[in-house]
Amino acid sequence: MAGNSFGKLFRLTTFGESHGVAIGGIIDGCPSGLELDFDAIQNELDRRRPGQSKIVTQRKEPDTVEFLSGIFENVTTGTPIGFVIKNKNQKSKDYSHIRDVYRPSHADYTYDKKYGVRDYRGGGRSSARETACRVVAGAIAKQLLSTVQIYAYTSSVGDIFINKSYQELDFTKIESNDIRCPDEASAERMIKKIKDIRKQGDTIGGTITCVIQNVPIGLGEPVFDKLHAELGKAMLSINAVKGFEYGSGFDGAKMRGSVHNDKFNEDGTTQTNLSGGVQGGISNGMDIYFNVAFKPVATTLQKQETINSSGETVEMQGKGRHDPCVVPRAVPIVEAMAALVLADYLLMDRVSRL
Amino acid sequence: MAGNSFGKLFRLTTFGESHGVAIGGIIDGCPSGLELDFDAIQNELDRRRPGQSKIVTQRKEPDTVEFLSGIFENVTTGTPIGFVIKNKNQKSKDYSHIRDVYRPSHADYTYDKKYGVRDYRGGGRSSARETACRVVAGAIAKQLLSTVQIYAYTSSVGDIFINKSYQELDFTKIESNDIRCPDEASAERMIKKIKDIRKQGDTIGGTITCVIQNVPIGLGEPVFDKLHAELGKAMLSINAVKGFEYGSGFDGAKMRGSVHNDKFNEDGTTQTNLSGGVQGGISNGMDIYFNVAFKPVATTLQKQETINSSGETVEMQGKGRHDPCVVPRAVPIVEAMAALVLADYLLMDRVSRL
Amino acid sequence: MAGNSFGKLFRLTTFGESHGVAIGGIIDGCPSGLELDFDAIQNELDRRRPGQSKIVTQRKEPDTVEFLSGIFENVTTGTPIGFVIKNKNQKSKDYSHIRDVYRPSHADYTYDKKYGVRDYRGGGRSSARETACRVVAGAIAKQLLSTVQIYAYTSSVGDIFINKSYQELDFTKIESNDIRCPDEASAERMIKKIKDIRKQGDTIGGTITCVIQNVPIGLGEPVFDKLHAELGKAMLSINAVKGFEYGSGFDGAKMRGSVHNDKFNEDGTTQTNLSGGVQGGISNGMDIYFNVAFKPVATTLQKQETINSSGETVEMQGKGRHDPCVVPRAVPIVEAMAALVLADYLLMDRVSRL
Amino acid sequence: MAGNSFGKLFRLTTFGESHGVAIGGIIDGCPSGLELDFDAIQNELDRRRPGQSKIVTQRKEPDTVEFLSGIFENVTTGTPIGFVIKNKNQKSKDYSHIRDVYRPSHADYTYDKKYGVRDYRGGGRSSARETACRVVAGAIAKQLLSTVQIYAYTSSVGDIFINKSYQELDFTKIESNDIRCPDEASAERMIKKIKDIRKQGDTIGGTITCVIQNVPIGLGEPVFDKLHAELGKAMLSINAVKGFEYGSGFDGAKMRGSVHNDKFNEDGTTQTNLSGGVQGGISNGMDIYFNVAFKPVATTLQKQETINSSGETVEMQGKGRHDPCVVPRAVPIVEAMAALVLADYLLMDRVSRL
Repeated sequence: MAGNSFGKLFRLTTFGESHGVAIGGIIDGCPSGLELDFDAIQNELDRRRPGQSKIVTQRKEPDTVEFLSGIFENVTTGTPIGFVIKNKNQKSKDYSHIRDVYRPSHADYTYDKKYGVRDYRGGGRSSARETACRVVAGAIAKQLLSTVQIYAYTSSVGDIFINKSYQELDFTKIESNDIRCPDEASAERMIKKIKDIRKQGDTIGGTITCVIQNVPIGLGEPVFDKLHAELGKAMLSINAVKGFEYGSGFDGAKMRGSVHNDKFNEDGTTQTNLSGGVQGGISNGMDIYFNVAFKPVATTLQKQETINSSGETVEMQGKGRHDPCVVPRAVPIVEAMAALVLADYLLMDRVSRL
Repeated sequence: MAGNSFGKLFRLTTFGESHGVAIGGIIDGCPSGLELDFDAIQNELDRRRPGQSKIVTQRKEPDTVEFLSGIFENVTTGTPIGFVIKNKNQKSKDYSHIRDVYRPSHADYTYDKKYGVRDYRGGGRSSARETACRVVAGAIAKQLLSTVQIYAYTSSVGDIFINKSYQELDFTKIESNDIRCPDEASAERMIKKIKDIRKQGDTIGGTITCVIQNVPIGLGEPVFDKLHAELGKAMLSINAVKGFEYGSGFDGAKMRGSVHNDKFNEDGTTQTNLSGGVQGGISNGMDIYFNVAFKPVATTLQKQETINSSGETVEMQGKGRHDPCVVPRAVPIVEAMAALVLADYLLMDRVSRL
Repeated sequence: MAGNSFGKLFRLTTFGESHGVAIGGIIDGCPSGLELDFDAIQNELDRRRPGQSKIVTQRKEPDTVEFLSGIFENVTTGTPIGFVIKNKNQKSKDYSHIRDVYRPSHADYTYDKKYGVRDYRGGGRSSARETACRVVAGAIAKQLLSTVQIYAYTSSVGDIFINKSYQELDFTKIESNDIRCPDEASAERMIKKIKDIRKQGDTIGGTITCVIQNVPIGLGEPVFDKLHAELGKAMLSINAVKGFEYGSGFDGAKMRGSVHNDKFNEDGTTQTNLSGGVQGGISNGMDIYFNVAFKPVATTLQKQETINSSGETVEMQGKGRHDPCVVPRAVPIVEAMAALVLADYLLMDRVSRL
Repeated sequence: MAGNSFGKLFRLTTFGESHGVAIGGIIDGCPSGLELDFDAIQNELDRRRPGQSKIVTQRKEPDTVEFLSGIFENVTTGTPIGFVIKNKNQKSKDYSHIRDVYRPSHADYTYDKKYGVRDYRGGGRSSARETACRVVAGAIAKQLLSTVQIYAYTSSVGDIFINKSYQELDFTKIESNDIRCPDEASAERMIKKIKDIRKQGDTIGGTITCVIQNVPIGLGEPVFDKLHAELGKAMLSINAVKGFEYGSGFDGAKMRGSVHNDKFNEDGTTQTNLSGGVQGGISNGMDIYFNVAFKPVATTLQKQETINSSGETVEMQGKGRHDPCVVPRAVPIVEAMAALVLADYLLMDRVSRL
C-alpha cells in the first residue's frame, strides 16, 4: 500500500529516486493565507545539502527547490503545493557494476525481493536523497508553526556524548560548527572522530536530540495517534534511524514512580519534565524533547564481500563521495519531521471541541 | 482528528472508558475464511487481565469478550468484527474526590485542557483499560499470521536486566513465572524487586523485548510507512511507553559501519542481524527484535501534592489496587500491537506487485 | 479493503449483520462539549424502524440504541462514541432454506463470490438493517449542525411524482403522513399505489428529495472531495439507490449556459439556484438540494425462479414481512447521510485557513 | 482537509493551477512490474487536449506529460510515479480585469470565501485543466486493468439524445467523429447543435454514458465503499457534473420489483442487467454502465452582469477560447476516473480473502 504520504491534515506526499530526473512532492492541506519566506525554505535545504562542509559527502547537488502551484503572490492559497528538486548530479556515474549486487545493510536486497524490479542507481528510492523533500515541507510547516521553536542538534558521535542536558546548552551555537553540536568542546571532539573514521574508510553512528519549545497545550490524538507516537514514527521513518526515546526514555524504565512523577506547579506547568512535554499522548505545554539514534552509514570505503542477485559471493568497495557520519546532515531532517508532525497535530486540534 | 483507529487494511477502531458501560472495538478488513480459535483469544485477554497474579493489581475484571458480528459458524466473513468487553467493576468505587484533581504524570490535565470535559472515573479513556481491545484484535491478527511467531518478554525491571541476548533464551518459559521473563534467575529477582517496591507504596519501570520470527520477506511500505516505523508507533501508542529501539538500537549509534554491517550469506540471510530484520523499512526475513521502555506507573500509594482544576494545591493518595509495575501485563499488549502491524503489512504487501 | 467507515474527521465505522447478536458502530471525531438530546436520536431511529406504519414491513424491532462510551453526563467528551442496537427479532425465522440460494438482484451471489463465505440469514451484512447505525450517527451529526436544517421527503413513488418544486412545499407536513410526502394529495396517491402494489405481491421504486438550508459558505474540499461528490457517494452507499443528481441535475444537461447560470445578487446570493448550493465543489450558502433514486425492493412475494450455489435452477418466494417500497423508511437515512457529510465537511473547513 | 487525493491503494494526488508553472501529480501504490505504453498515455491526453477539433476550445496546449520517477527501463518499480505537465499557454492573457470579479456559476466566489485568497487566472485550481492529471493516472490504471474494457461516449447534447441502448452501438466508432458519439446520425446532429450554440455565443450541456466490460466479479467494499458509490463520487468530482445514475438509474425508481429483478442464468450471469453490473455494492461480472450529466459551460461569450468582491454590480463578457460544450473533451476524463476506481478496487479485492 502506498507509503509515501505523511500526515493527515497537513499532508506531504513525495516521489523521486536518487538518480532519476527529479525528486519532489505535494503538500496538501496547508492552510491558505500563509506568506512564505522562500529564503528560509532554501536555507533548510542548504543545511541538508551534500558538500556543505568537510565532514560530509563531497557530492555536488545545488538542491534548489522550484514551487509549481499552491502559492500566489507569495501566499499559500489552500490548494496543493507542488514542488520539484531536479537531480543535477544523476548522470555522473556509472552504476552498472552494482546492478545485481546487494550491498550489505542497504535496501537493495529487500527492494528487489519486494518489488521484483529496482532502480539500482545510487539506491534509487531507498536513498536518503528523498529526505530533501521532507525538508522542503518541514520548512513550510515551521512557518505555519511560527510561535513554536524546534531545535535539533548532534548529541553524540560514536562514543563521544555531549553529556549535558539540553537546558545547559545554547541553541544559537548549533549552526556554529560543522557537526551541529551546541557544545563546542564536544563538537571539536566529534569532528575529529569523524575525520579519523573517514581516514580509515569507515563510518560511524550518532544521536540527535530534538527540543521543541512553546508547544500549545492539547496536541495529540489518543489512543493510537498519541503525539509522541507520531513523533516516534516520523523519526523512525528517516533513513538509518534505529531508536527513539522521549522524556525520560529508556532511563525512565529504571526509575521509581515517586521519583519519575512530574509535580505540578499551580499554573499547570511541572517542576520536573520527565514526561517530556506529553502526558497521555497530549502535549502539556512543557518542552518536548527526544533522542534519535542513527546507525553508521552502511557504505564504507573498505572492501567487503557480499552477494549478487544470483546468490554468488562478490567483492565490492564503496567509492569516495559518501558521508562518514549521517548525523550532521540529519539535523535539519529531524527538525523537518518534527515540524510536519506538529503542524499536522496543530490543525487536528482545531476540531477537538465544539 | 479521530485517533482511535490503527492499521490501514487490517484496521482496529476502539472505544470505551475505564468506568463506562463497556469497552470494545471493530476490526474492519480481516480477510474472510479465517477459522477463529476463541479460546486462544480469551487466553490472550487473560494474560492481560487484572488480578492474574500477586504482582499485579488485584482489581477484578473477568474481561470476557463478546463478538457481535463478522463471524459466522466460527469463520470470519470479511465483514467488520464488532466486539465488546463489559466493565464489570466500574461501579465499585466513588471517584468524585478526584473529579477536579489532576494527578501528576497522568493524562487528567491534558485531557481537560484539550477537550474541556472529561470522564474522570479511573482515568476514563486514558486508562490502560482500552488496551484490552488491542489484545482482542491482536489475538485475531496472530491467527491470521499463523506461520509467524511473536514472543514478548520482560527484559528488565528497574535496574535488574536479563543480560542475555534473546538467542540464549527459551521462549517456552515466558509464561512460567508471573513477570514473564524466560530467564528464571532474573525473573525471581524482578519479582522480588516488584514486591519490595510495592511494600514501599511505590512503583517501578521496566522494559519488554519482542522477537518476531519467520517473518515473510518484503513487508514494509517505504518511505514513511517503513515496517519498523509503524512498529515503533504501535509500541509508543501503548500507555506508559517512553522509548523504542530495534536491531542494534541506541547501541548501534556508537558503532562503526565496518562492524555494524550484516554480511550476507549466499541464500540472502545474514551472518549477523544488527539490522533487526528490517533493511530500508522492509523485512528481510531475519528475526525482527526490538525493545520497549515503560515508565513506572504514575499512581503510587504515597501521599503526593498536586493541583486541582482551579489551580489550587491539594493532597492526594492512590488507593490499593494499582499495578506496582506495568510490565508483566504489558507483555501481551506488546505482542498484540506487533501482530496488528504485521497483519496489516502482510495484507499491504499483497498489492505490491502486478 | 475495509469499507465500513464513512467520513474523515467526523467518522462513523459500523458493524453488524441482520440476524447477528447486534449491530452498532463507533463515531470517532465528534468534538467534545456537545450536549446530546437522546430523545431526538431515538426519534430518528423510530422514523426508520420497521412496523411504524401500514405501508412498511411489519417486522418488529424496537431498535433501541445503547451508548457505551464517549459521553459523560450527557455531553460528548471527544473520545469515541460506541453504540449498539440489539437484534431482537433475529431468531424468529428459519433461514436454512435460502442457505444456498442466490436471490435475484440481491447481494447473495456477489458476497459469496467475493468472500467465499456468507451469513445468509436475512441478507447478513448486505441487509439495509445496517442503516440504523447510520441514523444514530446522523442524529448526532444533526445536533452538531444545530443551525443547519436538513429536510428529506418522498418526491415520487413509481410514476406518481409530486410535481412541485421544493420551494412550494411545507416541510412541516413531511411527517404528517406515512409516505413522508409534504404534498398531501400526492401522498394519498402514493400510499394507495403502495397498497395496490403490495396486494399484487410486488414492490415499487421511488425517489427522495433532500433540501439542506442554512449551510455555511465554504464547505467542500476540491478537487476530489467536492461537497456534492461526497453527498453523492453518501447517497449511493445507501441500499437500493440507483442515482443521484443535485441542483439542475440531469435536466441541467439539456440547458444552455445563458439560462443555467445563476446571476449574483450584490450580497453574493444568487437569483436562481440551478447550481444547487454548490459551486466548484464548495457550498455557496444557497440551499443544497438533490434527488435520490431508489429501485424497487428485490424481495417480492411472487414466485421466482433463481439459482443456487451449485448453479441449479430453484424456485423461491419471499415471505410476508418485507417493505413494498423502501422510500418512506429511507427518508431518515437520506437525512442521516447528508448530516454525516455536512458535519464532516464543517469540521474540515476549520483547517482551511491560517 | 486535503481533498486532492483519490483512491486508497492505487492513489492519485494532484496539484496545479490553470495558469501556474505546471500541473502534475503523484501516483502512489501502482504495483511494480507494469510495463508502460507511453504512447497510449499521451494518446489519452490528446483526447482531452484543447484545440483537438473544431467544436472545442481553440486554446493551444500541447499537454505533454513528463514522468519524473517510479519507472525504470519502462517498467513501474512500485515507488511513487511523479509527473508534470507544463503550462505552456499560461502567460498569453491578462487576467487582471477579472481579479475581483466573481463569474456566475463559476467557483470564483466560493474559493474566495473559503480560502480568502485565490489564483484568479483562468480559474486557478478550479479550472478543468487539473483533469489532465486524472487522464495521465487513468491511462496508467487502464494498463493495469489490461483485461477490462472501458468505453465512454457522448449520449446526449442538449435535447439531442442518442436514443439507443449501449448494446446497439459499435464502440469502435466513438473516435470517428469530433463529438465522440458512436451513432453517426446522432453525432452529426450533436455537432451541428454545438456549432449553432457557439454562433450564438452560448454553451450547452450534455451526458456521457460509460460502459465497463469484462469486470472481475467481487470488486466493491460494502457498506460505504460500494463500487457504484465510488464510481459516482469519481464522476461527480469532475468539473460541471450534475448527476450520476447507474444500471436502471432514475428510470428504475419508476419500476416494479417483478420487472426490475435480473433473473439468473445457471452460470451466474443474468438475463437482464438493470442492476448495472453491481449487486450490493459488489461487481457481479456483468457490464457496468452509467450516465453522467454535465451542465453547460458557465463561460458564455454573451455579456453578463455579475458582482465583484466589493459586492458591486459589474458587466463582463467571456472571451473566445472556451468550450461551447464540455462533453467531447470529458469523454476521456470519465474513462480515466472509471479506470482509477476500478484499479483501486481491483487491488483492494486482493485482500478480501485469507
